[in-house]
Parts: sequence; structure tokens; C-alpha cells
Amino acid sequence: MRFQSLRGFRDFYPEEMAARRKVLDKIFKEVQKYGFREIDAPSVESLELYRIKSGEEILTQTFSFADRGNREVTLIPELTPTVARMVVEREKSLKRPIKWFSMPKMWRYEEPQAGRLREFYQLNVDIFGVPGPEADAEVLAVGIGLMLKLGLEGNFIFKVSDRRLMHGVLDDMGIENKGAVFAAIDKRYKVSEPEFKDMLLSAGLDDLKVGRLLAILDSRGPLAESLQRLKGLVSLENKATLEGFESLERLADLMAMYRMEQYCELDPSVIRGLAYYTGTVFECYDTKGELRAIFGGGRYDNIIELFGGEPMPAVGFGMGDAVLEILMRRAGVWPEEKIATDYFVLTTSPKFMETAIFLAQALRDRGYIVETDLLSRSFSNQMRYANSIGAKHVLILGEKEMAEGKVSIKDMETGGQETIEVIKFLESSSQ
Amino acid sequence: MRFQSLRGFRDFYPEEMAARRKVLDKIFKEVQKYGFREIDAPSVESLELYRIKSGEEILTQTFSFADRGNREVTLIPELTPTVARMVVEREKSLKRPIKWFSMPKMWRYEEPQAGRLREFYQLNVDIFGVPGPEADAEVLAVGIGLMLKLGLEGNFIFKVSDRRLMHGVLDDMGIENKGAVFAAIDKRYKVSEPEFKDMLLSAGLDDLKVGRLLAILDSRGPLAESLQRLKGLVSLENKATLEGFESLERLADLMAMYRMEQYCELDPSVIRGLAYYTGTVFECYDTKGELRAIFGGGRYDNIIELFGGEPMPAVGFGMGDAVLEILMRRAGVWPEEKIATDYFVLTTSPKFMETAIFLAQALRDRGYIVETDLLSRSFSNQMRYANSIGAKHVLILGEKEMAEGKVSIKDMETGGQETIEVIKFLESSSQ
Repeated sequence: MRFQSLRGFRDFYPEEMAARRKVLDKIFKEVQKYGFREIDAPSVESLELYRIKSGEEILTQTFSFADRGNREVTLIPELTPTVARMVVEREKSLKRPIKWFSMPKMWRYEEPQAGRLREFYQLNVDIFGVPGPEADAEVLAVGIGLMLKLGLEGNFIFKVSDRRLMHGVLDDMGIENKGAVFAAIDKRYKVSEPEFKDMLLSAGLDDLKVGRLLAILDSRGPLAESLQRLKGLVSLENKATLEGFESLERLADLMAMYRMEQYCELDPSVIRGLAYYTGTVFECYDTKGELRAIFGGGRYDNIIELFGGEPMPAVGFGMGDAVLEILMRRAGVWPEEKIATDYFVLTTSPKFMETAIFLAQALRDRGYIVETDLLSRSFSNQMRYANSIGAKHVLILGEKEMAEGKVSIKDMETGGQETIEVIKFLESSSQ
Repeated sequence: MRFQSLRGFRDFYPEEMAARRKVLDKIFKEVQKYGFREIDAPSVESLELYRIKSGEEILTQTFSFADRGNREVTLIPELTPTVARMVVEREKSLKRPIKWFSMPKMWRYEEPQAGRLREFYQLNVDIFGVPGPEADAEVLAVGIGLMLKLGLEGNFIFKVSDRRLMHGVLDDMGIENKGAVFAAIDKRYKVSEPEFKDMLLSAGLDDLKVGRLLAILDSRGPLAESLQRLKGLVSLENKATLEGFESLERLADLMAMYRMEQYCELDPSVIRGLAYYTGTVFECYDTKGELRAIFGGGRYDNIIELFGGEPMPAVGFGMGDAVLEILMRRAGVWPEEKIATDYFVLTTSPKFMETAIFLAQALRDRGYIVETDLLSRSFSNQMRYANSIGAKHVLILGEKEMAEGKVSIKDMETGGQETIEVIKFLESSSQ
């Protein structure tokens, strides 16, 4: 009988993992440079904690169950409730701003498809305690910064808006069922234009209002420019609209300070389905528009209160690994999937094993990745193995060399080979 | 309402995580230097896969459940079945030896106590495809190497034995119920000496046999020496005893080649409860004998066949993070729990934010960890925050400095401060 992994779950063999590890290292390094601090948290939480934000609906999409103590628990489908819990538990002592990140596994019981898995990793970046757009800008800058560091320049665009903006606009239009309109806008790019109009009409808008709304939604493009255009289409008398507008203007200024305004565009259609966003919202897409969103995030100032804490502003994003990998592969910047070795120590006789281990240990002490032969193989089989593990150098312990206290070093790239005294080799191999 | 994490699950706040990350980095680096390759695998597997090795008993100790598709699944309580599955899936193409490691989360539904949690990390290191003690020695060397790299010299000892040895000894004694004797030996250090003798008697040994067995079990101490002593107490006519003995002798030689024999001792009482070990077995303990085992491992040559593959020898170990942390704390080598920052950029007026962001981004490009003020705080509040994030330097953007294109750099360790031109600062800050 042979076993398989569950559907929507992934195995990563060494070559695949080596590439992933390079990507993960770049992501961690970039996020940390902005002063975000790594946290780690349980993968299993009480279901109650995860019901609060998302309601019963979440039950149909989680790996949740009763544990042996009959507690209702769930594998975490996102991290925000956990992070909120951790903030609330130490809200008195934590210095503000609280800048946290982590990239744990998460689980959702959804139908697996390209870019959507049942088990995935998601980078979470959050700032708590900052009410102003300075935090929104920093969070955006981290997101843009890591896309750039991953070599994706030209392949992505951040679409930015502010929930208050559309809120005010719909207010001014006298629309009561805002939820239905938001839901329609949220689906805009997933349906055809006629379908979209139908959705707006059935949400209670008349043709005139649909026309006005479309004009506003179409005010998209470069941040500062598009905001100017939008100014003529909305009433800044409305408090919510004004707040959203001014916040976006400040955000545009800040993104210019980061020299990153070119990676952002205004798109009033960005809503982010989840009801809890309160201000800035953004999504990162591939420029070709082929993939689902790579990032999603924004401001959710009510979250800490929702989880029992004192009110505390919050802004952040989540980035899953699955869509990112697809984008990187398409852009040709996914790292080469291969393992690397600095030295393979080749022994031509079992009697040289002591020297082989001595040399290997000395090289490992210097920080190198080193393998020796564990299978008493022939010269050619050892060479073949050295090749398969991507060894840069092979140290050859042959009869002649050993008799003279020497070792041959084969450069596996150039094929060149030299023979030097063991002592000199060790002196020269310090990193 | 306030929420808490589940019992036996841990939150890691930034300071705690910073210390853990240092430990994890050291572990990963050490294991990789021996040419072990990182893999990653699902946290949820079909329960069937995990029943094979451990039987129904495992059901009482796992977080297992029926998923929404009514599959019986489990959070992994160990990694071996998953690794075996992955080896079997690619047994045709994987180059031998297969040297893999990973350090995933695992879950066991046990009563939480010191060093035992419901959610923990476990380092897994395995070599597949090598029948000889060369692999056992390398696996042991990695284990010892990482204890040394963690600063634990003098705090640990590896107790080594071979299952074949005791098997042969019990054979020669004509003992039929070997399982009961192994179970008793496995508990030896958990019960008193009289209790232990009683267990042996009730397993069917007479006083004479108990005496002989105790003499053999007490042949512990330095590897090579103790093996010599043991030689006089067992019959090497027995095939199993001979194989175990010769394998241990070779292992002792190899550990001497690694210059690590001083960290190993023979202890024939080491059995490792799990039935699947077939040769070498070892456990790493704190020298004070206060804690449960830190490592456990050995040779389990039947594992791949058990999971449906062609027979393939295997040796490896697992090391949980919980006991290791306790040992490191007691030994005073757990890293300091603090976060670190290279630069905090202090702005004395909002009008300097553009420069602050410019400088911060320039420093981040050079690889530094940098924060700016997001809260328009006073000078002293910014200084206080800089202190709280462990900033090594504070860049002060004051009116006077800015007017002259200069910046002041405060060294937070010495308290010293100098004012230099922004351009010169940027030139000098290249890493």
C-alpha cells in the first residue's frame, strides 16, 4: 500500500525547498529591515476566537473539530484573531507602535485550485497603535519593497482606496443597502460590465446613480493624479468622503517620499470583502491581471476592541505563498531548484576515512557545507554523487596524495584540479 | 471577553521570538553543514498513515478528527511516517544517501508539563540508504555538533546502545517474553532498583538471570572501554549480539574520528520504547539527570518497507524544542530575549519626515534595521521608544542640522554624539 498527501497539501523535497527557503529568507529580511518583529503563535485556537470576526460562515471553510477534551478548536484559517488576542493580552505593557510579522502555516477547507490550497503559508505584517497614514504608508512600503526584492519590478501593481470614500459617496446618493452595493463593487472585476450594472440596479441604484458611481469607480490610475480627478466627482462636504480623501492624499505624499508612488494606483473599486476594514484598503495584483490578488490589506481600527481590548488603531496585510510563487515562476524569478554543497570529500580507500572526517569537520567548523562518502563507493560513483549534490569542490584523498600529506582539489565548475599539502589547504580555506 | 491560547500551546512575543530565532538559526546552520537538506511537509496527514507505525494507541494522543470531506486525518504527532511516505513516493529517483532534515510543528494530546507541550517544534534528521554505522556516526555527530554549537558543552551526554545486543543476550538466556523485559529495561531509570528487579522477575527471569542482566546493563561508561568490559559478559557466539557489538565497536571508532567520543557513553539500558528500532539506539540526556531525554534516535531499517517501499536502511533522530530550551536556560546559554535595531531616525519636526524616510530607505538598502517615528512624538518620547527597541544609533534630524544638510548620530551605547553631513554619513554607512 502506498500513501499520498491529502489534496491541497504540499510536500517540498530538498530542491524545491532550497528555492523556497531563498524566497522566505528575502521576505523575512525585507520585513525586518523596517523594524517589524517576528512573533510566533499556536496553529490551533479555540473556535470561539475565530468566530468573532467572521461569524458562523467560517465553520464551512475551516479545519475545525472537537479535541479530546471536547473543546471546539480550529486550525487557524488566518492570523488576525490570534494577533489581536496577543495584543490584548499585553496591551498594558506593549510599546507603541506594535510592529509584528510572522509567516505561519494556515489551513482552509476550500476546493484546491491554482493559487489556492488547503494548507499554505501567509506572511502577516501589522502595525498597531498608529492612527495616521504614516503606518499605512509604511505597511505599503514593506509590501512593495519585498515585491521589488523578489525581482518582480514591472510585474505588480498595488491598487489602493479608502473605505470611507465609497461610504461617503453612497451616503450622499442616499443608498440604504450599502452592503449590497459594496458586495457588487467587490465583485466588479470578476463579472462582466453588464452583469455589474445589473447588480447595482438590483441593489437599488437607478441609472443616473449607476452612471455616477461608475464614473467614480473609473477614477483609477496614478495615485496623486487620480485623486485630483476624483475630487471633481465626489462631495468633500461629506465627512466620511473627506476623511478618506485626505487620508489618501497624505498616503500619496508619503508613498512619494518612499519613492514608491509608481507602484500604487488609486482604484475606488477596491473594497476588500471583509466587513472589518475601516479606512485604507489595498490589493496587489499582477500587472497582466491573470492571477487573483497576491496581497490584501488595509486599516481595521476596530479589531482590538472587537477582541476585548481598549480601542487601538491597526493596519496590516496578509500575503499567501501560493499566488506569489505562481507570479514569480511566470516572471522567471523563482530561484533555481537545486541544492548546493561546498565540498565533497572523496576517499579512494576506507583507510582514509579518518582523514576524510577530520577534513570534513575542519571545513564545517569554517562554515562550509561538506559531505563525505558513507557508502564505501567507487571513485566514479562518488564523483557522480558529488555532482548530484551540486558540490563546488571535490577533495580527493588518493593513495599518492595521502602518502605525501597532500590532497587534490577538483573545481567542479572549471574541471581544474590542483594538489596541495593538507595543512596549506586548511590554512587557505578559512572563510 | 478576553481570550487565551489553548493549554499546552505557546505564544512567542518578539523578544522571546528573537531568542528562539537565534537558536533555530544555529540548529539549521549546523545540520546543513553536514549536508542534510531541508524538506517541508504537510501538518495534516491521513490518520491511516500514522496508524501504521504506532497502531490504534496513537489515537488517544493525537489531535485527529474527521475533516469536512469525512476523511480521518491527524495533526502530525511525529514526522517519521510523513518522511517515509515522501521517500517511498520518489524511491526510484532519489539519490542515495538521502539526507533530510526539517523542524516542523507537531501536536500531541498529552497532559502539559515542563518540557512536554501539546504543540511543539521537533528537529528531525534522517539518513536513508546507508546500512553501515558510518551513517549512525554522522547522525550522532550532527546531534553532538549542535549541542556544542548551542553552548551546551559539559551539560549533555549521549547514551548509546544497539538493540541487537540486548536481543541476543535475552535470546541466550532463553527468555520468551522479550517484550516485557524490554519494557522493564526501558523504564529502568524511572523506577527504583527494587522495583526494577521486581519487574524483571515478573517478566519471567530468575534471580540468577536478573543478576547477569544487571551486570550487563551496568556496563556503561566511555564507549570503547565499556565495550571491552561488556565483551566478557556476553556471548559473541550469538549472531545478534555479535552484530550489535561489532556495530558499536565501529561506531566507537568513528566517533573517535569525529573527535566526539567523549560525548558518548555506552548504556545497554537504552532501548527506546518504540518497537521499530533495529540497531543502534541513542538518547541524549542532561548530565545532571534532571530532565527527560533531549534527543532520541537510532536505526530503523524496516521503516521504508513498512510504508510500502523497497527495503531501505534508515537512521535518524528527533529533538523537541521544549526540553532543549529548559536545558539551555539552566545552563545559562539561552540567548538574551531582546529585539535589536540598527538605527532609529528621530524627527524634531514633521517637515523632516521626507528626509527621515529617505535616510531610512537608504539605510535599509544597505541591510540595516531601521525605524522612523510614525506618531509625531516629542524628542524625549522618540528617544524612549528608540531605547525600547534596542536601537544602536539614533539619527537626529534637528532644525540646525537640517539647515546645514547635516545629521547628528547618537551612539546609544556610549552616549556619544557627532554631527556630520548627510552625504558623508551615507557614504560611511555602507555595510
